[in-house]
Amino acid sequence: MTATQTSRYPSRVEPVPRLLPRHDPVVWGDASLGPLDADRLGRYERVGFLEMESLLRPDEVTELLAEVDRLATDPDILTSERAVREPGDQTLRSVFEVHRVSERFAALCADERLVGPARQILGSDVYVHQSRVNRKPGFRGREFYWHSDFETWHIEDGMPAMRALSVSISLTANRIDNGSLMIIPGSHRRYVSCVGETPDDHYRQSLRAQEYGVPDDESLQALVDDAGGIRTVVGGAGSVVMFDCNAMHGSNGNITPYARCNVFVVFNSVENRLVEPFGGLSPRPGFLADRS
Amino acid sequence: MTATQTSRYPSRVEPVPRLLPRHDPVVWGDASLGPLDADRLGRYERVGFLEMESLLRPDEVTELLAEVDRLATDPDILTSERAVREPGDQTLRSVFEVHRVSERFAALCADERLVGPARQILGSDVYVHQSRVNRKPGFRGREFYWHSDFETWHIEDGMPAMRALSVSISLTANRIDNGSLMIIPGSHRRYVSCVGETPDDHYRQSLRAQEYGVPDDESLQALVDDAGGIRTVVGGAGSVVMFDCNAMHGSNGNITPYARCNVFVVFNSVENRLVEPFGGLSPRPGFLADRS
Repeated sequence: MTATQTSRYPSRVEPVPRLLPRHDPVVWGDASLGPLDADRLGRYERVGFLEMESLLRPDEVTELLAEVDRLATDPDILTSERAVREPGDQTLRSVFEVHRVSERFAALCADERLVGPARQILGSDVYVHQSRVNRKPGFRGREFYWHSDFETWHIEDGMPAMRALSVSISLTANRIDNGSLMIIPGSHRRYVSCVGETPDDHYRQSLRAQEYGVPDDESLQALVDDAGGIRTVVGGAGSVVMFDCNAMHGSNGNITPYARCNVFVVFNSVENRLVEPFGGLSPRPGFLADRS
Repeated sequence: MTATQTSRYPSRVEPVPRLLPRHDPVVWGDASLGPLDADRLGRYERVGFLEMESLLRPDEVTELLAEVDRLATDPDILTSERAVREPGDQTLRSVFEVHRVSERFAALCADERLVGPARQILGSDVYVHQSRVNRKPGFRGREFYWHSDFETWHIEDGMPAMRALSVSISLTANRIDNGSLMIIPGSHRRYVSCVGETPDDHYRQSLRAQEYGVPDDESLQALVDDAGGIRTVVGGAGSVVMFDCNAMHGSNGNITPYARCNVFVVFNSVENRLVEPFGGLSPRPGFLADRS
């Protein structure tokens, strides 16, 4: 298996991991255009993420949670490829492409409070590359190991440049103790080239437990050392964090009774549409990476 | 399998879990005797634990960490029953009975800064029921699910009353993100009677992953609801937390690079020495529960 095209961000091809520089800007747009001011844009550029407390109103959160419950009990959803269940008890963990199966989530993904900053940061019109609802149960919530989304999107989906961002919308409280999102500040400015080849169709497994595109200990240590720490994103229901596609992030498990439910929306620049995957494999299905 | 003697704290005998009242005092001693004042004793009685920042000096911490490293590379220790390794990579996770294999740890277990408060809380002379060093590695630190130590010590070791306490001594920083000890405040005042029988000799497995004496979701939820939350014990190296033998505690996994190393010492009242296990099985070995 070899790469079919030259990549500025090679991964899963060499026997040793490497920390490579980022070749793309972080902020592509202009502070003068708004809605984010120069201060917030500058911080996003520096640390790779932006936290927005109470972006959604409580009634919106209630409505979205009800919509999640509806999806989680819809037999068509549960039996579709879009649904990912817990390895153990088959509880619903994630539903992908929620903006295509739910008018409510379609509206959320088109909400100017999310799209506006995305458009400004990415310096162009944007489209939804991926959307999903993630439910992390209480008592038995599993960890999500460190990863750069861009590494996967580049190698497996053919996203050419680091010109996308994720929006994580909390429908429940993110606490210090219930497996909340952790980000390594500044990690988006370097690229961890991972080891290990990728077998075809591995995505079915990787949605449950990662095996490929896993950063090595030494690179992670270097990123954390440079950052001087790790940011655990806490906040109430309705809070939002936007983060760069190459920000190194993950989450610990959750043995507390506090379940978590978040919506993820990935906005990609219309000037950064997918090409052939840089890892040389067939593209993953559209519900994971929009190619329409 | 049936219990050989009547227990005030039955567990692993009934098909449904139950929340039972505590029949023993929490504080057995007197505030006037010191070293803890009435305020601190009262708080311990109410919440079930006591945090002491910087109890050990930095040079003591350094010395103890060096001693842990020595034990972790001692072939006699590594191959003994006292050593517990990670299921995956065989890294040393714990060494039991450290006060018997190390003069340095023997001195620590006899240190008046630890023994004084223990004697006062338990209202008598005390002895070391169990001691161990726990190493929770970075990147791949596993969770430790909720449990009451007393449940195990009563059922498997024959500890008659709730008249013991654990002292956890941090040799590294306990952070919000690296799988630090979590305690449910006030949980020590009730007893979760767990379901499921206990096979003989299961302790070899249970030191790696718990299967017996695991509290049910509903009881945990009730304890957390009553407490109004969970306390994550953070603090610098050299800090200490003492907690009641029946305090419900656990810890999340740890994907951060921040490894943790703690020493646990369990002091039991000399008036609470072990009898036959209340679960009707043979007693566990002495390195887990001193019967000398």
